[in-house]
Amino acid sequence: MAKEITSRSEDYSQWYIDIVKKAQLAENSAVRGCMVIKPYGYAIWEKMRDQLDRMFKETGHVNAYFPLFIPKSFLSKEAEHVEGFAKECAVVTHHRLMNDPNGSGLIVDPTAKLEEELIVRPTSETIIWNTYRDWIQSYRDLPILINQWANVVRWEMRTRLFLRTAEFLWQEGHTAHATRQEAIEEALQMQRVYAQFAEEYMAMPVIQGAKTPNERFAGAEDTLTIEALMQDGKALQAGTSHFLGQNFARAFEVNFLNEENQQELVWATSWGVSTRLMGGLIMTHSDDEGLIVPPKLAPTQVVIVPIPKPSPEFGEVADKIMRELRDKGISVMYDQDMKNRPGFKFAEYEMRGIPVRIAFGARDLENNQLEVARRDTKEKTSVPIDGIGNYVANLLDEIQQNLFNRAKAYRDSHITRVDNMDDFKQVLAEKGGFISAHWDGTTETELKIKELAKATIRCIPNDNEPEDGVCVLTGNPSKQRVLFAMAY
Amino acid sequence: MAKEITSRSEDYSQWYIDIVKKAQLAENSAVRGCMVIKPYGYAIWEKMRDQLDRMFKETGHVNAYFPLFIPKSFLSKEAEHVEGFAKECAVVTHHRLMNDPNGSGLIVDPTAKLEEELIVRPTSETIIWNTYRDWIQSYRDLPILINQWANVVRWEMRTRLFLRTAEFLWQEGHTAHATRQEAIEEALQMQRVYAQFAEEYMAMPVIQGAKTPNERFAGAEDTLTIEALMQDGKALQAGTSHFLGQNFARAFEVNFLNEENQQELVWATSWGVSTRLMGGLIMTHSDDEGLIVPPKLAPTQVVIVPIPKPSPEFGEVADKIMRELRDKGISVMYDQDMKNRPGFKFAEYEMRGIPVRIAFGARDLENNQLEVARRDTKEKTSVPIDGIGNYVANLLDEIQQNLFNRAKAYRDSHITRVDNMDDFKQVLAEKGGFISAHWDGTTETELKIKELAKATIRCIPNDNEPEDGVCVLTGNPSKQRVLFAMAY
Repeated sequence: MAKEITSRSEDYSQWYIDIVKKAQLAENSAVRGCMVIKPYGYAIWEKMRDQLDRMFKETGHVNAYFPLFIPKSFLSKEAEHVEGFAKECAVVTHHRLMNDPNGSGLIVDPTAKLEEELIVRPTSETIIWNTYRDWIQSYRDLPILINQWANVVRWEMRTRLFLRTAEFLWQEGHTAHATRQEAIEEALQMQRVYAQFAEEYMAMPVIQGAKTPNERFAGAEDTLTIEALMQDGKALQAGTSHFLGQNFARAFEVNFLNEENQQELVWATSWGVSTRLMGGLIMTHSDDEGLIVPPKLAPTQVVIVPIPKPSPEFGEVADKIMRELRDKGISVMYDQDMKNRPGFKFAEYEMRGIPVRIAFGARDLENNQLEVARRDTKEKTSVPIDGIGNYVANLLDEIQQNLFNRAKAYRDSHITRVDNMDDFKQVLAEKGGFISAHWDGTTETELKIKELAKATIRCIPNDNEPEDGVCVLTGNPSKQRVLFAMAY
Repeated sequence: MAKEITSRSEDYSQWYIDIVKKAQLAENSAVRGCMVIKPYGYAIWEKMRDQLDRMFKETGHVNAYFPLFIPKSFLSKEAEHVEGFAKECAVVTHHRLMNDPNGSGLIVDPTAKLEEELIVRPTSETIIWNTYRDWIQSYRDLPILINQWANVVRWEMRTRLFLRTAEFLWQEGHTAHATRQEAIEEALQMQRVYAQFAEEYMAMPVIQGAKTPNERFAGAEDTLTIEALMQDGKALQAGTSHFLGQNFARAFEVNFLNEENQQELVWATSWGVSTRLMGGLIMTHSDDEGLIVPPKLAPTQVVIVPIPKPSPEFGEVADKIMRELRDKGISVMYDQDMKNRPGFKFAEYEMRGIPVRIAFGARDLENNQLEVARRDTKEKTSVPIDGIGNYVANLLDEIQQNLFNRAKAYRDSHITRVDNMDDFKQVLAEKGGFISAHWDGTTETELKIKELAKATIRCIPNDNEPEDGVCVLTGNPSKQRVLFAMAY
């Protein structure tokens, strides 16, 4: 089975596709650009969703649900937003099919044309701010701290499973505030929540920073981002949090009476992460044997494989181990399959990235031992049955930490300071990763570098130190370095 | 606040709308027929969803996600299915908007017409069975037990919040089996799961039965249903579970090699409940003071209101009560609002249907007592602070049981046996509820009765006793009674 995976060194893109397919995470559907998320992929997404949902609720947010459709005219109301999102989208023009009078099957009923076309939401700022207008009269109605779990559609021409699909699942937070400062703090808070989730649960180190004006969300005054680095040296924008200023309040006329009894436009943020995170998870940790899932997000953390095959006596031992692990909140399954051989099963569980495998045969039991294998390093250890619960609980923590450390070591060794365009291109071509370079702050330069080197500015890190220098392209003065990379 | 609710006796429909709006459950959106589910309504739906999800997983199901869009040609493949679902639906015909060259804003880009129109899923049998074709080769690949949580769209002309909306949220189970018998058992199992959920969690008694051929799901060989009775004497179809036979396997050519090494078509079920359950929940229990939520589905089960208003001393007492309740897994909030008076707050929490209210003032504390009010009966009792946790835990159980008993007593007293059409019409007009009557088994008679009396056959109960009789309309022989009612 594992043999069928293309190695990363041979063809990284194909390796990614192989992992997604052979670990049974997702597949392409009959509908162009839309994916089917298979049960195992969805189970991992559910773990991510549930943890994010807890973190949103802990920071005071509540969930709600807004319509799938957006009237065409809403998209036009915010000038920049329409440029960003009206271009490639799914447009509903009719509300009925009919049998073709010529007998050629179903056709669109021409009499059922909508007065105004509806767009399948690419993001929900417009429909939500149109709703907030009725919800907000005074500062007493603020803040509104709402999140929505939903599907959205952007008509992408080139799609890749999880990373870029026409339909994807995501959450979008949409908050309304009485002051500019409060909205800015909210956007920063959600960037921190995303970073914490990425690092503590996905074991994926991220750089927190701000996007350049050119890379901002359409309609935002400031876009904050978390940027991760994949094993092929390309960056992945893993989540964004936008300070929207008063742009959407202005477009949808959402005013409130402030504490000074004056009418004022409401301040806004929005923030989102999507099933794209699944792509980030895969590309941060997995290897040529298959998927690697960090223990905190693994639907099954431990699998028990009896050797050579299940028997009543082995079943009793497995039951005892499972009870001990479950008492510690560890999810575990016992492989009761009689048909396949242990070697096949081992490869299969490695493919699926189950963090810990416990195997045992008659000889092991005689010695009161189990063979414990960890997926991250593939090390095997003989462990006494007595105390297996504590051993595995500690091992899962260690694996979680090791995955983070390994990814961070890779990421940290792939941030390279360069001071001229020759080095810039060479580092990008030979080593990849983030390039830390001076930039003169203009969109013109940013676009020229993109054209010359295919690298974009991923972010201006939040914790940047001021440093006088000159732009890597133009030689114009610069006050700080920014991070460039090729990106997904 | 409560004064603004229309009473049920005055105008039941308006009462329902008032509850939905004033308890802040949902509202109409700018998009025709689509609703906004507000945070409080969504929190109740989340409790329902999470419990159903647990019950699905306990019965061996896993979640997955399939595309929002269905190619038009897929709908035509199952002959009856297309009749049922192709009629009123949202049709995506284009994938781009453009600026009108005449400057009138955004228009559909005529060059971006899709080769084949896409339908926003009204239900997912077609896209899922098209996918299953690739997943199923042999009996070893079966059963497939998949559920999906999703939004669906049916272009309804007359909509009512929760009960009938163009877009709604639901789950749809789609299972594939090697034998007819196994599929039939699955459909029955899910009907039982739905009934158990309705009765134990929603405290809503339901009758389990089968639909007549005329009322079956388009493409099903048998449709099982759970039918509830609302306080106005109308029935609500609350969930359905379909035995689909081999219809979708035939339409999408899904064969498998059975244990006898022969090619055979796969057997199927599908089953779903939706946000419509919210409407059922509201109309089963609520009263003229507002919403009543059964404790097991209440986002907040207990609210603590200090009288006349919060103080540091009161806060300490509230903290102690909250700790005690939370230790027992009870969700509780302390009202710290300084502005509104207790009477206003009481009415507000009654409106929102919070099961238990604990109020106390200085005098109560002197006596080591609290005033505990239950929402279902509006009874108030003085209760010692000591042991409040146990008292409230028991009270919540009692409320849950009382709501069920009350609804069941109403339902049971509204099943009337009738033996002629005059009584049929009179009972329907004067008393409402279910009418148990003989029917000759023909669709023709069923439709005539519907025309004459506006009542439909809700179901043939699973536990029906055979009984010889004559059809209430035609006088033709009949072997059993069926249940008629006016329905939502």
